[in-house]
Amino acid sequence: MEQNKNSPTKRVRCIVKLGGAAITCKNKLETIDEENLKEVSTHLRQAFLPDSTSANVLGMDWSKRPGQSEAPSFIDDFGDQPVADSESFIAVHGAGSFGHFQASKSGVHKGGLSRPLVKAGFVATRISVTSLNLEIVRALAREGIPSIGMSPFSCGWSTCQRNMTEADISMVTKAIDTGFVPECCNTSSFEFQVLHGDAVLDTLQECTILSGDVIIRYLAAELKPEFVVFLTDVLGVYDRPPVEPGAVLIREIAVLEDGSWSVVKPKLEDTIEFTVAAHDTTGGMVTKITEAAMIAKLGIDVYITKAGTDHSVKALSGILKGGIPDDWLGTAIRYVS
Amino acid sequence: MEQNKNSPTKRVRCIVKLGGAAITCKNKLETIDEENLKEVSTHLRQAFLPDSTSANVLGMDWSKRPGQSEAPSFIDDFGDQPVADSESFIAVHGAGSFGHFQASKSGVHKGGLSRPLVKAGFVATRISVTSLNLEIVRALAREGIPSIGMSPFSCGWSTCQRNMTEADISMVTKAIDTGFVPECCNTSSFEFQVLHGDAVLDTLQECTILSGDVIIRYLAAELKPEFVVFLTDVLGVYDRPPVEPGAVLIREIAVLEDGSWSVVKPKLEDTIEFTVAAHDTTGGMVTKITEAAMIAKLGIDVYITKAGTDHSVKALSGILKGGIPDDWLGTAIRYVS
Repeated sequence: MEQNKNSPTKRVRCIVKLGGAAITCKNKLETIDEENLKEVSTHLRQAFLPDSTSANVLGMDWSKRPGQSEAPSFIDDFGDQPVADSESFIAVHGAGSFGHFQASKSGVHKGGLSRPLVKAGFVATRISVTSLNLEIVRALAREGIPSIGMSPFSCGWSTCQRNMTEADISMVTKAIDTGFVPECCNTSSFEFQVLHGDAVLDTLQECTILSGDVIIRYLAAELKPEFVVFLTDVLGVYDRPPVEPGAVLIREIAVLEDGSWSVVKPKLEDTIEFTVAAHDTTGGMVTKITEAAMIAKLGIDVYITKAGTDHSVKALSGILKGGIPDDWLGTAIRYVS
Repeated sequence: MEQNKNSPTKRVRCIVKLGGAAITCKNKLETIDEENLKEVSTHLRQAFLPDSTSANVLGMDWSKRPGQSEAPSFIDDFGDQPVADSESFIAVHGAGSFGHFQASKSGVHKGGLSRPLVKAGFVATRISVTSLNLEIVRALAREGIPSIGMSPFSCGWSTCQRNMTEADISMVTKAIDTGFVPECCNTSSFEFQVLHGDAVLDTLQECTILSGDVIIRYLAAELKPEFVVFLTDVLGVYDRPPVEPGAVLIREIAVLEDGSWSVVKPKLEDTIEFTVAAHDTTGGMVTKITEAAMIAKLGIDVYITKAGTDHSVKALSGILKGGIPDDWLGTAIRYVS
């Protein structure tokens, strides 16, 4: 595998997308789905620190929580117990009910930062998405995952006509790489970075919204993780909107070298292509598959499954690389040479 | 003035330190002094957007506030009214009652990131200081100041044996510089960046705490602002701890080319040097003056004054450059050639 100058020497095991719909309450402005977020965090902990249990977790969020006046008392329990030999993960979360209101109200995605409303919307969007990022970092830290929030804007990422080619991901690779502090601490890089969709500057249209999905695609191409997991609020990709009667979960999609893809499981009627295309006008499923296929084309397995389920635990653990068990519910998108 | 590769082409008018003691409640864990923060934000708005009034401010924090379920309704009032011709400001805040607990409990400043307690403390410290940063950005945005939070860690700053020489401030200069989006938006760079003391990686001791004061000194040397203002919880530097009877406010300090300094106003007894030195063992005043003198030596005026007062408004406005009025209460530290 070719290493470019941005590549870390340490391999990233997994890039995981925490879908906005899975961790926030879609229709309630800036409201986190605390229960789901807790569950997702627990599952990420199990994947990230396989030897951990809920009983031996020592949380890393020592801040007050709402309604409490004191910091947690367990801090004194930290001894010199070894840190698990953790692998490198990157999480990228969507905005869900955060950020969208501010961005759409001001049209940040359309550019024009010199207009007062857009400028204000840019600031307001970043406030909203960074506050969600902070809460996700806190939820992961409470599970004992050494997480570091990284804002695309602060990392210096900009776009050119909404395209991410201008992004300098050296901050991300530095933080992954043990080489960041090469002299002394080979085991202590921050393996769990938490990025997010963000408002960023754009060289052609002044500003735009950089979505979590675009970030994932870019990072996957640059960092070549072993696999990518999309955690959503449904089990995977269906042949039509999942609320429609008779909707069928697509279990496996094969991607060819030219980027074309086809459903290999279950065996569907000839109408599948038409059905999926029709669906796209409402649910964006073709877009989702096309995005995933671009990652799979690089030889990186993509698993789309429901957050907070056993299926997500399996996807995050990496065991699907060896083969998809029949009882796994989700959509696997894989390169077929 | 020499421009190095990091220098923005747009001059920074002012770097302002928001002292942790001035904006948080010192003895209450992670508690913001809301009243002071609001007042400081208003004063910064007056300095940053001189034509603004409290009546015509359109806030840029559109997020829910605690206890409210809705976003603010004034967003529809944004028309195409022009943005004031604002100048470039950088704010750096201390941690106050945020971060210190986490850092001191774990010893992050002493390094050793491979120890579990230090690693957890690093994560916990960043959670605490970034949550304060977010609240300060929100307070400024509510005053209509287009503020962007910038975390030293996310910007990629690291230290070498606690020294900031390794820091790459290109992110800060890019965001200052209109050249960041050179093709189209000369008026829309983000002129108000909000940085903070942070936990960062260190190439020799693995990690450390980078203080707001060290950041200010470094940025002042790199960016050559017109002046630097330290907003604290007392009027300025005194000849002994200000709570002691007879403590005298030092009004003006002259700094010579070799970095040495002397009090020029008021005329004090010969014992001043001894008194100040004795004070230092308790209050760190000599350290404070020495830090300020290093900035003043570069030809940059330094004003230390109390946050939330008319004296701070005057200092932030830049009018002290023309001469210190007799009724201004604070400490001015200036280079004398």
